[in-house]
This record gives sequence, structure tokens and C-alpha cells, in this order.
Amino acid sequence: MQNFTFHNPTRILFGKGRIADIAREIPAAARVLITYGGGSVVKTGTLAEVKAALKGYTVFEFSGIEPNPTYETLMQAVELARREKIDFLLAVGGGSVIDGTKFIAAAAPFAGDPWDILARQAKVRSAIPFGCVLTLSATGSEMNNGAVVTRRASNDKLVFLSSQVFPRFSVLDPVKTFTLPPRQVANGVVDAFVHVIEQYLTYPVDAKVQDRFAEGLLLTLIEEGPKALQEPENYSVRANLMWTATLALNGLIGAGVPQDWATHMLGHELTVLHGLDHAQTLAVILPAMLQMRREEKREKLLQYADRVWGLREGSADTRIDQAIDHTRRFFESLQVPTRLSGYGIGADAIPALVAQLQRHGAVALGEHQDFDIRRSQRVYELAA
Amino acid sequence: MQNFTFHNPTRILFGKGRIADIAREIPAAARVLITYGGGSVVKTGTLAEVKAALKGYTVFEFSGIEPNPTYETLMQAVELARREKIDFLLAVGGGSVIDGTKFIAAAAPFAGDPWDILARQAKVRSAIPFGCVLTLSATGSEMNNGAVVTRRASNDKLVFLSSQVFPRFSVLDPVKTFTLPPRQVANGVVDAFVHVIEQYLTYPVDAKVQDRFAEGLLLTLIEEGPKALQEPENYSVRANLMWTATLALNGLIGAGVPQDWATHMLGHELTVLHGLDHAQTLAVILPAMLQMRREEKREKLLQYADRVWGLREGSADTRIDQAIDHTRRFFESLQVPTRLSGYGIGADAIPALVAQLQRHGAVALGEHQDFDIRRSQRVYELAA
Repeated sequence: MQNFTFHNPTRILFGKGRIADIAREIPAAARVLITYGGGSVVKTGTLAEVKAALKGYTVFEFSGIEPNPTYETLMQAVELARREKIDFLLAVGGGSVIDGTKFIAAAAPFAGDPWDILARQAKVRSAIPFGCVLTLSATGSEMNNGAVVTRRASNDKLVFLSSQVFPRFSVLDPVKTFTLPPRQVANGVVDAFVHVIEQYLTYPVDAKVQDRFAEGLLLTLIEEGPKALQEPENYSVRANLMWTATLALNGLIGAGVPQDWATHMLGHELTVLHGLDHAQTLAVILPAMLQMRREEKREKLLQYADRVWGLREGSADTRIDQAIDHTRRFFESLQVPTRLSGYGIGADAIPALVAQLQRHGAVALGEHQDFDIRRSQRVYELAA
Repeated sequence: MQNFTFHNPTRILFGKGRIADIAREIPAAARVLITYGGGSVVKTGTLAEVKAALKGYTVFEFSGIEPNPTYETLMQAVELARREKIDFLLAVGGGSVIDGTKFIAAAAPFAGDPWDILARQAKVRSAIPFGCVLTLSATGSEMNNGAVVTRRASNDKLVFLSSQVFPRFSVLDPVKTFTLPPRQVANGVVDAFVHVIEQYLTYPVDAKVQDRFAEGLLLTLIEEGPKALQEPENYSVRANLMWTATLALNGLIGAGVPQDWATHMLGHELTVLHGLDHAQTLAVILPAMLQMRREEKREKLLQYADRVWGLREGSADTRIDQAIDHTRRFFESLQVPTRLSGYGIGADAIPALVAQLQRHGAVALGEHQDFDIRRSQRVYELAA
């Protein structure tokens, strides 16, 4: 096991009806800015429920945070937060709204150009405190300190991390996910699955607990994912998925182990240039990535085949092929295509994707920091 | 899954050499009181290492915190902390030192009679902040907000919980456990094992992640426990055990599920009246407890038999018997006897144990709060 520091101070309020408890978590007399996306939280009544729970607070609203939230949109919220002297933010939505809110929280008190937080990884010394009401389980943003923001003007999709942007609290009410469209549910399962894989499927460092936990999350996704699509109002299924997606990226399973994230990096460019959903990009890239890197990931691929898919017969290479194939078929069973062609993208799109990667300096990826542009190109080709 | 709130703000500094990092975690100019037990941290050099890391701070020491720390001893430290206006505590030791330090932290600023914190569960409104340098993995106290304190004068072993007594940080350096006597290593494995069981082996609430995580911890203890005794300086083994013991009782696997803790309650009285190590009491009580309550725990016992011990043949009752037997043999393989007779305690001791339980109001225990004195008595008898 590698040395690590683990710290996650976010308070989780899990279960039915927990929105009612948020006022206890927000300082009295705070000026609260509620941030959200499109109209779904209005339509489902979640926004009204949140406002009812905030009775007595001075409340502002900012809507229109898009999937893959953009710097352009978020900077409007930053101006609002500054103008109205907001001292608490409340994100109501999924990972995009929460990621966007993290950026607003960090950018509003930031002294220089907020773009530097993303483009130059400028240190975030303070942030407006914020909470979350999660309506879509997928990204894990509700219990971590990272965010991804896209700048539309320049086609950049960039990440920032700061200990200042852990949510103070997150409400995880599985009921809030009952009304999601199937595509978003499926995306959430794929997203959580690949988050686990990025922290698990590297090389062994004898981190037994992290491995067991990662495998437990994968098994739960495999068991519950299809049920979530078949029985949208099965509370137990949604509860298990919600907690799994949160634990998939809250720092726990990644503590003390090597991490990969090359699949995410290659996927980001597909979202930026072709507008694929984040999870769709992961479903396309991962099987090709695993095939491409089967030698360097050999030991963990065999462990994955055994413990996650129960594959114990045949040669090692056969089991690895089967494990990759099971992974692909799992995504496809959730109606998430796993080839570029499934989204109408041809091989002619690859040079531009590779050029983007190069421009973003994504030239030494993976757990060994040696996954170069040439091999990235090969992965895109394998995914065609 | 049941509704739950999960919050754990303790920062974990895990790995070799992490004591060097503690100064970054303690406010500059703090008056620090180092608390420890007997001389082992002196002998091993850990205390010197801690003091070297605290260069520049005003440092005080309080030694002599005993296993099963006593109110009588801890109140001396409380007086010292008050007199010297201590504003940071640093526990260097195992669970007893950390538990004791939590009590000192809460009692020093407490306005009334500190005994009320234990005896009347008086609310702890503030506590001196503290950190830990863990030298023995077992209790999980390094990452939770509970403590057990014994009052020698009245034979009471009582628990208190407070959100004020989460450690600010805990250093988990596996190397610090290399020099432990085998008995303490074995006790640590048993202790962590039973912590998991108390939160896992109840009745199913379809909490799939919590179950998988609990099983992952149990499997790790089964794999690594014996190796820890055979290869005391195997870093990897000690690292896995250390992280497992911490995660066994940091609130994570117990969130959203029923919990039992009857084995602990019955065990406490064995420590108070007969001086058994905490883990020894658990090893004695648990097999008898599981046998006694096999019907109410039937579903989870079968899951435990399957997923933890790989028992899939024979009738359900046979598998349950085998699972309990495997549990007993696991403890015995660590040289921890699992019968009262193994500690020279006869059946004649049982009435006094039962009377203690009654005096402590332990009359409605377990996940259904219906485990009464009569059945507790039967467990002691089965454990004879």
C-alpha cells in the first residue's frame, strides 16, 4: 500500500425526506443562492421542497447550469454571488450543477482571474461554503473536492481540486432519482463503474481493503444497475446505487493505490468535440483502453475477471478477453453504446481528438504516466 | 437501507514516516499535552520521534493511561490540562490511550462534574482538539467519536459519544506496530473482526454496499491476521490490518444498517470483573451469542457463511454451525481462547456478571432491543 492522506469532511444526510433537515446545516441569517440546471427540479417539485426547508433565509436563485457546465454560464453566477453578497450556496441537481457550484464557490472570492483556477491550477485560498441536494447519482461530486468545467469559447474541459470545495453537506434522497429519464440513470451507473475502474484496474500494491471495497462497488452496480432501469421506483435499488456512486469517488477506494484516469482524459475530448454524454464517452473508451493495455494491467485484469465476473475457467488471456467483453456487454445492456460508430462518429474524427489531447498536455497518462499520444490514438482507433 | 447521517472529519496520515508531518496539523504556538500509556512508546523511540516532530511547541507529557483507561487516572490529566492551559492533546498509543484522551479532551472544558459525561451522557459542548499517533490497530478509536472509560471505584465501564471528539488527525504508520507483543496483535485482529460483525450480522435491510464492505474487511482480517503473527515485520500485512481496523469502526459500514453490540455489552462485564482483555471477552462471547441467536440472525448468518467462509454445501443449519465454528477456530488460531474456562473462569462467576449487566441497564440489547437478561445469562452459560 502506498502512503496516503485521507480527509473527507462532507456530512451525508441519506434517505427519504432528508431535505427537511438542511436548515440545521446552514448558518442562520445566511444569504443563500440556490443553483440548479434546467427545469426538472422545478417540475418535480424538488426546488419548492428546498425553498420550503429554507423558510426564514434570504434566498436567491441561479438556474441554467448546463450538463458539462460552462465557464461562461458560471461566471454569471459568480457576478450574482458577488453582487448579492451570498454567503452560502446550495446546489440542487446532479454532478454538473454541483461541479459548477464548486467553481462558483471558489471563483466568487478569488482575487485574480478565475479562469486561472482551471487553466493554471491557481491555489484556492477560500470558497463560499455550500451544500448539495443530489437528484442524480453518478459523478460522486457530492462528496469530493473536484470539479470539471468547460470553456465553450476555447473547447477546454478542465479539472480543479481544492480542499476548500468539499460540500459542507449533501442530501442523498433516493426518491429524488425516481423520475430521471432512463438514459441518465444508465449514464450514472456507467459513470460510477468507470470511476471505480480508474482507481482499481491498475497494478497490485497489496491494498487488500481498497480492492475489496472497489469490487464491492462494482458488484453492486452490476446487480442494481439493470434493476434501476426495470423498476424505476424501487427505493432499495436506487438507494444502493446512490450510495455506491458517492463512495465510488469520495477518495476512499483511491487512497493508497495507483490511479489511472486515462479513460476519462480521452473521453473528455469526445464530449468537447462531439457532445457525447460523459458516461457515453467512458463506455466507448474503457473497453478499448483495457484491450490496449492488457499487459500492464494483467494482474488486476485477472483479479477483476475472477472476483467481479466470476471467470475462473480457461487460460489467463481468455479470462481477460472475457472480462473486457463482460464489461462491454454490461454497458450495452444499459443501452449505452460502446463504439464510436454507435454515436455516428467515424475514424475521420480521430486526428482532431488526438490534437486536442496534445493541446491539453495529455501526453503521459495512466498509472505509469507513460501512456503517450500514439497509444491514445490507437485507443480511439480500437474504439471506432 | 435505513436513513442515516454520516460525517467523519478525521484526517488520516497513513504510511511510513508520517509522524514527521504532525506539526502541519497542530496550530502554531499551541501548548501540547502528549498522552500515553506505559513505557513502550519510550522504549520503541516513538515518543522521541513525536517530540522531535513537535520542535518549537510547548510540550507537556502525561503517562500512565492504562489498558481500559480509568476515570481516576484520566482526571489527573484533566487537572494538568486545566492547570497548564493546554490547547492541543496528542495521544500516542492504542485505543485505550486514544479513548482516554477523548475523555480528557471533553472533561477539561466541561462545566459540571465530568463523570456525568459518562454516567448521564451529559452533552459535550466543546473539547480540546487532539490528534493521535496510533501504535496498535484494534479499536478504531483513531477515526471515530466514541470512547470507553472505566471507573475503578464502582466497577463501571461506560461509553460516551460526541461529535466534539473526532480526532483532528491520526497518524497510522504500520511500522509502529512491528514491535507489538503477539497477544496484542491477535487481540487487535479479534477486536476489529467483532466490530465488523456487530454491524453486519444482524438482519438484512438490502444495504448491499455496507454488506460488501463489511465482508471485505472480514476477509482481509482472515487473510492477514495469521500472517501478522508469523511475519511481524511484513509491512504490507500490517498496513492492511491497520487500515482494516480503522475502517471497521469509523461509522462507514454501520451507516444505514441495524447494529447489535450485545457481544460488547456482555464482554465489558468480563473485563471489569475478571480483567480479561477486551478482545478476549469478544472471542468468548461471540460464538455463544451467534449460536444463541441463530434464528433471528439466520439470513445474515447464511450470507456470512457463503461470502466470508465460502460455505455452500449442506443444509442451511449445517452451514450456520460451520460458520460459527469457523469463527471460533479463527480466534483460536490466533491463540485467543473462546471459552470462559480458557481463562480459568467457572460457571459460578455467571450470577455476578448477570447482576452487573442488570445494574448497567443492559436489559434490552441487540438489533431488536429485545435481548434480555435471561438470554444474556444463557449466553454466558453457553460460553462456559
